[in-house]
Amino acid sequence: MSRTVYVNGDYLPEEEAKVSVFDRGFLMADGVYEVTSVLDGKLIDFDGHLKRLARSLNELEMKNPLSDDEWLTIHRELVTRNDLVDGMIYLQVTRGAADRDFLFPVDAEPTVVLFTQSKPGLAQNPAAKTGIKVISIPDIRWGRRDIKTVQLLYPSMGKMMAKKAGADDAWLVEDGKVTEGTSNNAYIVKGGKIITRHLGNEILHGITRAAVLRFAREAQMEVEERAFTVEEAKEADEAFITSASAFVMPVVGIDGVALGDGTPGPVATRLRELYLDEMRKAAI
Amino acid sequence: MSRTVYVNGDYLPEEEAKVSVFDRGFLMADGVYEVTSVLDGKLIDFDGHLKRLARSLNELEMKNPLSDDEWLTIHRELVTRNDLVDGMIYLQVTRGAADRDFLFPVDAEPTVVLFTQSKPGLAQNPAAKTGIKVISIPDIRWGRRDIKTVQLLYPSMGKMMAKKAGADDAWLVEDGKVTEGTSNNAYIVKGGKIITRHLGNEILHGITRAAVLRFAREAQMEVEERAFTVEEAKEADEAFITSASAFVMPVVGIDGVALGDGTPGPVATRLRELYLDEMRKAAI
Repeated sequence: MSRTVYVNGDYLPEEEAKVSVFDRGFLMADGVYEVTSVLDGKLIDFDGHLKRLARSLNELEMKNPLSDDEWLTIHRELVTRNDLVDGMIYLQVTRGAADRDFLFPVDAEPTVVLFTQSKPGLAQNPAAKTGIKVISIPDIRWGRRDIKTVQLLYPSMGKMMAKKAGADDAWLVEDGKVTEGTSNNAYIVKGGKIITRHLGNEILHGITRAAVLRFAREAQMEVEERAFTVEEAKEADEAFITSASAFVMPVVGIDGVALGDGTPGPVATRLRELYLDEMRKAAI
Repeated sequence: MSRTVYVNGDYLPEEEAKVSVFDRGFLMADGVYEVTSVLDGKLIDFDGHLKRLARSLNELEMKNPLSDDEWLTIHRELVTRNDLVDGMIYLQVTRGAADRDFLFPVDAEPTVVLFTQSKPGLAQNPAAKTGIKVISIPDIRWGRRDIKTVQLLYPSMGKMMAKKAGADDAWLVEDGKVTEGTSNNAYIVKGGKIITRHLGNEILHGITRAAVLRFAREAQMEVEERAFTVEEAKEADEAFITSASAFVMPVVGIDGVALGDGTPGPVATRLRELYLDEMRKAAI
């Protein structure tokens, strides 16, 4: 079954969903994106994603081509047209098509693309029961990871390195400290305290991160936002990642070293439940 | 007049030249490119560009989708169909279209796109007579600049920063040393000696750089391949950049400081003549 994809105002069969070869997203990675999870046909933390989209666009001096209401309408229309129950809606905005030039074009119209990915049982991902294993690799990405650009080649290479090493994902290390995972924020837990990197240009300001830390603090858990080393992670009681589509996912091994007893820890497990419960309630 | 563009085996009017929104070049900057200059309808240093293309693809574990002969045929066909006299041929290969996933797709076919850009009098660029001015900005690009990927957002931002500062281009600075320009290699000249950064992951291995250094050595000029600082550059006798489409371009100012007497220096001027003379002779 062909998906229905949104491209610049049109709802098209995916085979017809195309952009110009002159699109700056294609030629220069001059674009940003968001991924919103869908559970039971409803959008999870949609407002958070729209806010971050606006910020990413602003950082790149691009105008937001649609209003919040228009974004919501397209998301809901895609859920309906694709009978999406559980999965994700991917959204990308680029600076548009123009003859190739390093200088930003003066009059290009932004390109807007959205599509769905169906993931039945997304919230029942069996990996949450077993936990995932990560390797550590150098973080050689550009310096503005707080802008959610489509410059995802190295995260993609990192995921392949993990796969080849028999692991599920990679944690990126810069100046001796973990920044984040290839497509998620990274956390360790030691003595009941949740430790995750502070915000800055070095990491993505995760929408799920913000919600999870809020829920953790509301539940009287101790949170410390600071950088940590791989060695510290290996000696942690437990670890986990957060992202819009993985929610809270326990990490049970780092570079071949098992954390705790090698099974998902209580903090990660509780935060996953908390997050999913609260977010389902607030879904729109 | 609409250009004729090559897309995956077809020669199309540019309005019809499109790629899937699922192309990994569009979604993840998972692609590489080359730009070959054309003078008097002939390709400049074509062999060098094909060799670097093969290297870039290999570094990203992508197969070269075409033979050298096939690449040449397409380039020549585009010159003919577009009546191209002076200008460039842009070539891009991506890992192809597949449902979005950080893991490389198993069975995607590479996407191949080529188009022309007409630049009448490219070799008579008046900027070569006056020289260009550059500013220095931090180099925050990813760590594998030796792979010619389409992750060009920061170089594009750098060119805009230069424009806003009333300059023509930006030199990128990392750990106190100049790496290269936004889309070119950077050189200074002091006491007759040509100084340019040594090869490594930090800079693009310029095809024009290799040719210019060869011509310089053949002409008994002294060449030193090492990193230099912005301060050193400001005190240099002259400076210049090289790239496939700028050839050798004198730099007459850095961060508002005029170099020498503020006009193109003799070394840059001579190297530009040498390069263009030799390359026109060898053009195919």
